[in-house]
Amino acid sequence: MLALTCVRACLVLGASRTATRARLLHSASGMTAAQIDEEVAKLLQLKAQLGEDGKHQFVLKTPKGTRDYNPKQMAIREKVFNTIISCFKRHGAETIDTPVFELKETLTGKYGEDSKLIYDLKDQGGELMSLRYDLTVPFARYLAMNKITNIKRYHIAKVYRRDNPAMTRGRYREFYQCDFDIAGQYDAMIPDAECLKIVHEILSELQLGEFCIKVNDRRILDGMFAVCGVPDEKFRTICSTVDKLDKMSWEDVKKEMVNEKGLSEEAADQIGEYVSMQGGMDLAERLLQDQKMCQSKQACAGLSDIKLLFSYLQLFQVTDKVVFDLSLARGLDYYTGIIYEAVLTQAGVPPPANDSQNGASSEESVGVGSVAGGGRYDGLVGMFDPKGRKVPCVGVSIGIERIFSIMEQKAEASAEKVRTTEVQVMVASAQKNLLEERLRLVTELWNAGIKAEVMYKKNPKLLSQLQHCEEAGVPLVAILGEQELKDGVVKLRVVSTREEVDISRADLIAEIKRRTSEA
Amino acid sequence: MLALTCVRACLVLGASRTATRARLLHSASGMTAAQIDEEVAKLLQLKAQLGEDGKHQFVLKTPKGTRDYNPKQMAIREKVFNTIISCFKRHGAETIDTPVFELKETLTGKYGEDSKLIYDLKDQGGELMSLRYDLTVPFARYLAMNKITNIKRYHIAKVYRRDNPAMTRGRYREFYQCDFDIAGQYDAMIPDAECLKIVHEILSELQLGEFCIKVNDRRILDGMFAVCGVPDEKFRTICSTVDKLDKMSWEDVKKEMVNEKGLSEEAADQIGEYVSMQGGMDLAERLLQDQKMCQSKQACAGLSDIKLLFSYLQLFQVTDKVVFDLSLARGLDYYTGIIYEAVLTQAGVPPPANDSQNGASSEESVGVGSVAGGGRYDGLVGMFDPKGRKVPCVGVSIGIERIFSIMEQKAEASAEKVRTTEVQVMVASAQKNLLEERLRLVTELWNAGIKAEVMYKKNPKLLSQLQHCEEAGVPLVAILGEQELKDGVVKLRVVSTREEVDISRADLIAEIKRRTSEA
Repeated sequence: MLALTCVRACLVLGASRTATRARLLHSASGMTAAQIDEEVAKLLQLKAQLGEDGKHQFVLKTPKGTRDYNPKQMAIREKVFNTIISCFKRHGAETIDTPVFELKETLTGKYGEDSKLIYDLKDQGGELMSLRYDLTVPFARYLAMNKITNIKRYHIAKVYRRDNPAMTRGRYREFYQCDFDIAGQYDAMIPDAECLKIVHEILSELQLGEFCIKVNDRRILDGMFAVCGVPDEKFRTICSTVDKLDKMSWEDVKKEMVNEKGLSEEAADQIGEYVSMQGGMDLAERLLQDQKMCQSKQACAGLSDIKLLFSYLQLFQVTDKVVFDLSLARGLDYYTGIIYEAVLTQAGVPPPANDSQNGASSEESVGVGSVAGGGRYDGLVGMFDPKGRKVPCVGVSIGIERIFSIMEQKAEASAEKVRTTEVQVMVASAQKNLLEERLRLVTELWNAGIKAEVMYKKNPKLLSQLQHCEEAGVPLVAILGEQELKDGVVKLRVVSTREEVDISRADLIAEIKRRTSEA
Repeated sequence: MLALTCVRACLVLGASRTATRARLLHSASGMTAAQIDEEVAKLLQLKAQLGEDGKHQFVLKTPKGTRDYNPKQMAIREKVFNTIISCFKRHGAETIDTPVFELKETLTGKYGEDSKLIYDLKDQGGELMSLRYDLTVPFARYLAMNKITNIKRYHIAKVYRRDNPAMTRGRYREFYQCDFDIAGQYDAMIPDAECLKIVHEILSELQLGEFCIKVNDRRILDGMFAVCGVPDEKFRTICSTVDKLDKMSWEDVKKEMVNEKGLSEEAADQIGEYVSMQGGMDLAERLLQDQKMCQSKQACAGLSDIKLLFSYLQLFQVTDKVVFDLSLARGLDYYTGIIYEAVLTQAGVPPPANDSQNGASSEESVGVGSVAGGGRYDGLVGMFDPKGRKVPCVGVSIGIERIFSIMEQKAEASAEKVRTTEVQVMVASAQKNLLEERLRLVTELWNAGIKAEVMYKKNPKLLSQLQHCEEAGVPLVAILGEQELKDGVVKLRVVSTREEVDISRADLIAEIKRRTSEA
């Protein structure tokens, strides 16, 4: 009866949606080509749902760009999260959580062009709301709302972007972000350096292969644009072109600057010289002596901070992986100081010997790309404060979805099976009519804190009980039979070796604990 | 500049929304009273946002019915989740995750009247989607989509209901569900009994006070309605009135049945006799002999299963808390067999001596009410399968938000402070100019896996460093000074006793580990 109700409801829904679409088409004159494409896609989807007999067929899928996580994926996800959370806790972070949706106006004006990617909720009466687009804006809203001026917090949660999904490459419309941020008025570069230390620790512990952390500073970029003769109003757009250097050659980037963005060829060439530079503290020192760069006060401030940052990074023992790279230009509007991005430089395959150009590295061409990024954003909290009071912040976001993809690939390739449960022992029976005895024993084990299970059958075959253990990776089986019950023992079987030994009921719990803790 | 952009954008948004509302009012003739109320509320909200000078003011809040979790609440939440997840894992459960939104039609026809509480996403082109309303329907969709016929899984995630929030009582529009379900064709009542065992373990371990688990069976309810003379088409509506017995007296319930739902007084009185019955296996046996009840085949099937259930519950050692209660009638349409609900019977205050009536207990009047519930739903997965193939399921949902509220109240009342970080040691300095030494030492500790922090100041005062430890509950301080550096030692201070002892640098890590593991 329930099933019937459903089919009927779906038919009604389908019919009314079709009618709506038809009406829409009559007034479609004001639609853009993209909107018309979307409507066509919807109509075709509706058509596909109508079977040959014209009856509505149920589409059994998750929404576009989303996925379920199966138990194996969850086991890998849990392992990755544990590593990351341990690191955040080692550095003294607290954690917070915020709602999955925010008032629409909380997100307004924070993401520039990308605002079109925000998911809005339907107006069903009440407030206008949108799904969160990242965790940084909700964090800033939280700080301003609660007048918090000091906090070191991590936040792991899903965010939503109506972007073009590329699921094989780990790009989804619903995906996890994994953020660590330090808010507060502190002495320069100390929290900034700790963020880089954290990225270094996490990427090392996860054993994802070689990586490199690029750093730059928004002030150095802006100063560089100024001294190269980029007009003020073109800073942002030229910056977003520079940001493409990890995917495009300098020639193409230059073309875009000159042909599309109307920059003079001379200015572009000057930028080209700077953005090919990479180094460490030495490069910052050299640029502080650079006659042209010196003309910009903010570039100088940025360069001095990079110097200071590297001195702290030396104490944190992470300079082996950090590169000062003038081509790094992260897109987000809200960065005000240091910015950084970690990239994997080796994805199973060794990097090609020598195809670098202008001294710029070419890790991205062989690596799987960016796995973490962040920077300083001293103005964002002030945007939410009624009096504009600023709370300086610096943070890092771990690109966890890409890391999941890599770990899943590794697990696929590895011979070792991913266990999806932690069961230590299965309580099995060798003969019929022993359900009650099995339930009695498994209760003893559960009450002693042992992870145990029984098959939900009155008379399961011993073979099928043992097979389940092989498949699920359960290491031990506690086998009950008439004889064992008479003797007051349990036959303990080690699944991997098939070795069996009788253990007295009184010693069983201690024996299971001993055997499962030693591995 | 960014802040200005934001204010401008908000003003524009405000203005265009006002215009939209005004237009809406002109065509309001077709609106219901409720819709008009909603529109009035929105206009008043807009007006409130316009300050005295007519300028748009930013509303700094989370959406209605939602909340942030601060670090203290998160610490409590983590503790509760750990207890619950440990129990699920002890019983051999895997875990899965599903997207926060589903295709709208996935949720259609599953929630009866409550469908109006579903949050829809705005149609921005592409598929029509809704936020998940519970975890059970996505679970059933997952099983059907992946053709899974056997799984024991837990799923902890947020769900969304546009209900009237009552946040002081832990009722939110965004809230966690914490579900454990067993899917598969098994012998009767074994998985059902394990679900009750799990509820028993979790509520005992969380130490929430006295509790009671009521069980009943959808088939017994339906059979009872049949033999009492309730017409078939009134089963559901009479059932939902019976469901109110935990909040209303029998007299009022009877009035509703007779006056509002048009049931005969005779039928109502017969129902009244049955729903006052409570007991254990004995009651099931007695009702199996009941001349009237016996006329219903499905009631008999339900009663036999209750008997079998109790025999397993005895083996699981949980009959002390389980009551067979014929008044339990959980609302959800999809239940097909056993149903249960756990209620707390003592919320800090002892229950009044004797105000029971008709033998029915009155725990609910003093308890904080339901904290877990579930049942068997053998038809739901089949609603998603193109061929209607059924996968029998039984599960339980832990009412985690109510449990959070109770734990938070307990933490408030307790003298013990809730720690929000796990920092074991702060690296502090007694004199100026020791930042580099502090960073060097904290790096050593981090690299050894010790949870440590430093203040992000060049020259923090010793007193403020110690105060921070007192406030945050950090147990140890490693103090560096000129003398200590010269002697190759660190002064290790125990915050609680203020005892200080010099430890050589070589022994420091072992000493910190020893001291923080013994507590």
